Amino acid sequence: MVSDPLNTVSEDAVLFTAQDPLVFTRGGQLDHVEVRYETYGHLNESKTNAIFICHALTGDAHAAGHRQGDRKPGWWDEMIGPGKPIDTDKFYVICPNLLGGCQGTTGPASINPTTGQSYGLDFPILDMRDFVTVHRRLVAHLGITKLLAVVGGSLGGMQALQWALTSPSDMGSTVIIAASSRLTAQNIAFSAVGREAIMRDSGFSGGHYVEEGTSPDTGLSLARMMAHITYTSEGALWKKFGRDPQNTDLAPGFGVDFAIESYLQHQAETFLDRFDALSYLYLSRVLDYFDPFAEAGACNLIADHPIPALVCSFTTDWRFSPRQSKRVVSRLERVGVPVTYREIEEGVGHDSFLLPISEYLDLVAAFLNQRFEEDAR
Amino acid sequence: MVSDPLNTVSEDAVLFTAQDPLVFTRGGQLDHVEVRYETYGHLNESKTNAIFICHALTGDAHAAGHRQGDRKPGWWDEMIGPGKPIDTDKFYVICPNLLGGCQGTTGPASINPTTGQSYGLDFPILDMRDFVTVHRRLVAHLGITKLLAVVGGSLGGMQALQWALTSPSDMGSTVIIAASSRLTAQNIAFSAVGREAIMRDSGFSGGHYVEEGTSPDTGLSLARMMAHITYTSEGALWKKFGRDPQNTDLAPGFGVDFAIESYLQHQAETFLDRFDALSYLYLSRVLDYFDPFAEAGACNLIADHPIPALVCSFTTDWRFSPRQSKRVVSRLERVGVPVTYREIEEGVGHDSFLLPISEYLDLVAAFLNQRFEEDAR
Repeated sequence: MVSDPLNTVSEDAVLFTAQDPLVFTRGGQLDHVEVRYETYGHLNESKTNAIFICHALTGDAHAAGHRQGDRKPGWWDEMIGPGKPIDTDKFYVICPNLLGGCQGTTGPASINPTTGQSYGLDFPILDMRDFVTVHRRLVAHLGITKLLAVVGGSLGGMQALQWALTSPSDMGSTVIIAASSRLTAQNIAFSAVGREAIMRDSGFSGGHYVEEGTSPDTGLSLARMMAHITYTSEGALWKKFGRDPQNTDLAPGFGVDFAIESYLQHQAETFLDRFDALSYLYLSRVLDYFDPFAEAGACNLIADHPIPALVCSFTTDWRFSPRQSKRVVSRLERVGVPVTYREIEEGVGHDSFLLPISEYLDLVAAFLNQRFEEDAR
Repeated sequence: MVSDPLNTVSEDAVLFTAQDPLVFTRGGQLDHVEVRYETYGHLNESKTNAIFICHALTGDAHAAGHRQGDRKPGWWDEMIGPGKPIDTDKFYVICPNLLGGCQGTTGPASINPTTGQSYGLDFPILDMRDFVTVHRRLVAHLGITKLLAVVGGSLGGMQALQWALTSPSDMGSTVIIAASSRLTAQNIAFSAVGREAIMRDSGFSGGHYVEEGTSPDTGLSLARMMAHITYTSEGALWKKFGRDPQNTDLAPGFGVDFAIESYLQHQAETFLDRFDALSYLYLSRVLDYFDPFAEAGACNLIADHPIPALVCSFTTDWRFSPRQSKRVVSRLERVGVPVTYREIEEGVGHDSFLLPISEYLDLVAAFLNQRFEEDAR
C-alpha cells in the first residue's frame, strides 16, 4: 500500500508453545497456537490508548481499511479509521482473528504439527473463556498492561462481556454491542440446523476434509443462508427485495426466481471463499454454551472492580434482541457496574452493528472519548 | 374400527382422466388425477351442512379421529369431531389430500401412467388456483352444490381465500386462519433454503429418487427442522426447552446436547416417515408465488357475491403475522365483504392454529353455527 492512513500492521504471533501450552477450559490443550492480528494507529507512550476489538462469528483480523487488491474494506470500517468513532488518529486498535478461526489463527482446519494432519474434530471444544485467555496473551505480547476498552459486536460483544467478568482490571471499559449473555432456545435451534447441514454433508468426511480433498460446500452454504436470514430484519428484507422477481420474465420453477433467493445464493457463494466449515462448527457452538451469569460468583471480580460498560442493542435485531441486552445491563448493574445502555431504533436487524447508523456511531465515539479523557486525568 | 363416532369415510376418487384432463394454471396438464379424501359426519338431506377443510403444507386428508393402530389422531382433531367446533354431529366434513401431495392424491412422486416412471420435476408447477380446480371437482363428485364453509389454516387458509375469490358462489362463507395473501421476502427466504437443502442432497437424484432408489433424507430433514423453528414462537420454545441439556451429564460437543436439538431431530425423523421431498418442493413453491390481490380484477367476483369471511391470526405467529391477516381483511372489506377478524393473543406461534386454544375454537364454532342457522332460515 502506498499510503495507509490507518498505519495498518498485520502480524502472526506464536503465543503458546509446547513449553507453555494453551489449556482449554473444557479440557484439552494445544502445544502451538499462532494468532494473526492487525493493528491500526499508534500506541502512545503511556500505552493508554489501546482498544481491543473482538470479532463476530464469521469475522477476522481485518477489521478496517483496504488490503492491496481489496474491493471491500475490513468488516468494521464504518467504526474504525481516521476520524471515525474508533479514531485511529487517537487510538491504537488491535484486532486478532479468533482462536478456532480460519484466517491465520490456529483453528480446527489448521495442521497439527505433531501429526501433520488437520485437527478436525480432535480440536478441543472451545469456550468463551479460551478466547479471553488468548486475547490476554496477545495484549501481553504487545507490551500493554491495560486496555482503554474492549469492544465487540455479537459474538464479539460476548467476548467483551466474558473478559470484563474474568479480568476487569485488564481494561478501562467494556463495550458490548448486539450481544447476549445466553442464547435462547430459538437461537440454539437455528445454530443446530446449520451445524447439522455441515456435518451431514458427505464432503465433511468426518471433519477430515482437508486430507480427503473434499469440502462440505453444500452444508456450509445452507448454514450461511439460514443464518443470514436471522441477521437481518423482516422489514429490511422487504424493503430491499420485496417480492421482486430476479428476472423480468418470471417463469415459475425451482430456480432462483425471486431477488431474495439470488441474494442468499450470493451470500453463500462469497462465504465459501472466506470461511471454513470446522471453524463454523466450533465458533457457533461456543455461542450455544455461553451463559456466564449462570456460573457461581461470575460477578465477584467485576463487583470489586466495576469498570464502566456500554451496552447497545437494536430494536430490529431479533437474533439478539434488546431484551437480551437488557439482561446484561441488569446483571451488571446489580453488582454496581455503571452501564450506559442504548437501544437504537434505526437498523436492519442484527447486522445493524456493522452499519453506519449515526446515532450508534456517535454513541460509541462519545463513550470511548469520555473514557480516554477520564483516564488521562 | 369397532366404533367411529365421526363416521369416517376414506375414499380415492379419479377426478380427471385423459378425456377430461386437469389443465394447470401455469401450463401443463395431467391425464390422471386421483384424490384421496376423508369425510366425517353425515350430509343432510338438503345438502346444506358440508364444510370443506383445506390442509396446510405438510397435512393430509386425515384431519380427525384415529385410524386403526394410530397413536395420534388426525392433524385437526382439536377442531373436528362430535361436539367440537366443526361438529361432526351437525356438519358433514370433507378433507382431501392436496394435489401435489404424497398421501394418496396424485403428486410429483406418483407414477405417471403414461411412462411408468415417477413424474419427478416433470410434474407441472402448481398454483393455488389448481388446488381450487381440484377441490371444486371433488365437491361436484360428492353431489354437493354449495358448501356451508371452506375452512383452512396456513396454506389451507390461502386455499380458502383463493377459492372465495375464484368462485364465491360455491360457498356460504370462508374461514381463513393464520394465513397470508402474499409471502414476505423473509418467508420466501426460509422456503428457498429448505428447497435448496433438498435439491442439493445427492439422494435427490434430479427428482428421480423413486427410480434411483435413493432418498434426499438429509435435505428433507434440514428443511423440516428449519421450517419448524418458524412454526413456533421464541417464547414457546423457551418455555418448553429453555437451555435445558438433553442429558444430565452434559459434555459439550457437536451432538444433541440441548433438549431443543433433540426435539428438532425428532421432528425431522417423524417427518421423513410421512412426507415426500418432491411434494415439499412443489407445495412450498405455491406459497411463494401466491399473491392473488396482485391480479387485475381479483376481487370482482367476491365484490358481486360478498360471502361472510372469518379471518383469524395469532399474536405470536411470526411466520404469517397478524399484519399479514390484516391485509387480507382490508382487501376483502374494501370490496364490501363482511369480515369477522380476530387476533388471538394466546398461542405458541404459527402452529397455534392446530392447538386447543379455547378463545379460538369458540370463535370458529360461533361463526360456523351462525352461518348454518342463517342459511337454514
